[in-house]
Amino acid sequence: MVLISEVGPRDGLQSISGFMSTDHKCLWIKALYESGIKEIEVCSFVPAKLLPQMVDASEIARYSKSLNNGTVLALAPNLKGAQLAIESGVDKLTVPVSASEAHSLANVKKTRQEMISEVKKIIDYKNQISPHVLVEVGISTAFGCTMQGAVQESEVISLAVELANLGVDEIGLSDTAGYANPAQVRRLFRQLRQNLGEKAGAAHMHNTRGLGLANCLAAYEEGVRTFDSSQGGLGGCPYAPGASGNVVTEDLVFMFESMGIKTGIDFDKLLRAREILISALPNEHIYGMTPLAGLPKGFSFK
Amino acid sequence: MVLISEVGPRDGLQSISGFMSTDHKCLWIKALYESGIKEIEVCSFVPAKLLPQMVDASEIARYSKSLNNGTVLALAPNLKGAQLAIESGVDKLTVPVSASEAHSLANVKKTRQEMISEVKKIIDYKNQISPHVLVEVGISTAFGCTMQGAVQESEVISLAVELANLGVDEIGLSDTAGYANPAQVRRLFRQLRQNLGEKAGAAHMHNTRGLGLANCLAAYEEGVRTFDSSQGGLGGCPYAPGASGNVVTEDLVFMFESMGIKTGIDFDKLLRAREILISALPNEHIYGMTPLAGLPKGFSFK
Repeated sequence: MVLISEVGPRDGLQSISGFMSTDHKCLWIKALYESGIKEIEVCSFVPAKLLPQMVDASEIARYSKSLNNGTVLALAPNLKGAQLAIESGVDKLTVPVSASEAHSLANVKKTRQEMISEVKKIIDYKNQISPHVLVEVGISTAFGCTMQGAVQESEVISLAVELANLGVDEIGLSDTAGYANPAQVRRLFRQLRQNLGEKAGAAHMHNTRGLGLANCLAAYEEGVRTFDSSQGGLGGCPYAPGASGNVVTEDLVFMFESMGIKTGIDFDKLLRAREILISALPNEHIYGMTPLAGLPKGFSFK
Repeated sequence: MVLISEVGPRDGLQSISGFMSTDHKCLWIKALYESGIKEIEVCSFVPAKLLPQMVDASEIARYSKSLNNGTVLALAPNLKGAQLAIESGVDKLTVPVSASEAHSLANVKKTRQEMISEVKKIIDYKNQISPHVLVEVGISTAFGCTMQGAVQESEVISLAVELANLGVDEIGLSDTAGYANPAQVRRLFRQLRQNLGEKAGAAHMHNTRGLGLANCLAAYEEGVRTFDSSQGGLGGCPYAPGASGNVVTEDLVFMFESMGIKTGIDFDKLLRAREILISALPNEHIYGMTPLAGLPKGFSFK
């Protein structure tokens, strides 16, 4: 059994130029939960002037919570965002901390050390107000950075250990730039699990160079059981025109199910959610090979 | 070190509707060899009325051989094709034998047992005329069949053993329908290698459902060192409109090189061959994420 953590409504939408209406977001998120997805990153609590797509974050979080159908996860890059997210009733916060100093400054305008302090503030705050809310960190650029190039593996792991010691519940590794390869994925997740035990979190892989599923397979074989992915591979990368963004949920789910590893997801219902996405964003390229090819003859999700 | 066996000029071209001129084929094949690819399946010796794209098979094989730059491989579905291929100077023949009886009848109008007899005739013939020519068999539909559905793993392995006993030099497994998953790939190649030893051949994976590279990774980890792929993922599948065909050479090469596994290929030169392909087939969808995204910052093929 694996947990597919759908990140399309956050990671997917924040990377595209088109705008998805609040109504469409609600329809899409509802359909995703109904397909059997148990955790969705529904929005990002960032200033609307920086990311107009997320102007309705509070509304989306509240609506998602009202569905009462699975974990509602939201991204918060700072204490202010975390406060708004908790007010909106989310179950879990995800905070991005970059392994690369250059990416940290570009992404959140803070050094790595300043972000660690911010995580500490978020944990202190939520422990006072809503101790049941979980906090995860996805370590961005854990496999390399478009600005800095290679990232030291030892730095990624020591950063993860520091975050675990602060009280972060789960620490995952994100291939923000689509640089990861399966050998590196094995090495890093093996070390992460050795150092963090139960706090070792999700594999967040991008498909920028086509290696997304191979990297997820490598992570699975190292014991990872939570995988971030995006319906339709939504997202893209501004540095890679024409290349896909996150790992495609549909293909990832098919890979696991075809290996006999349960996802709890109903493929037909997942395709219904995909139809909503396609109709809401008619000008975006929606990825995914399994939806085009169909399931193999005689294959069923059981 | 792995051997990338490029199948675009045969498997790729035979699946598309457009026609590539003989001049373009020659330019493309030359550029592929010059990129460092050491084996290319350059054509198929089938009747031109069945497959007009392959009307120039003899010319293409002779030209490829004249380049003297690597193994010239050609597909021959029967003795007649093998005779023509050998006359044209190929180094190696590949003969398709289906694991699925239904696919065998549809693909070569022979039962499985009739195809085994044909392989025997081909081997007897080449042993008399050109004993240095190698004969490989790719077992089609080894991972499932669009007509029959699931294919028994034990039947695939017993077929492989029978072929090895006939004197076939290498027996590979082909995921003709894009049905394979990494767990199945591991099981089948493990058994193949246990039963055939050095005669266990290539992994021929399709990317129809997006699992192509994950399946190649699984095969690599089971000891496979020869991989068929197609530049630009050329091919497609008539049963899966919009879905890619063979594993994309560019992404496969990047996967291995990024893992530190040498392919002997120069990526820039591989992209030059891709440009020829794109200009020769302007109306075909040419796949590949790495060419769009570019190599990671600081990454080099060394």
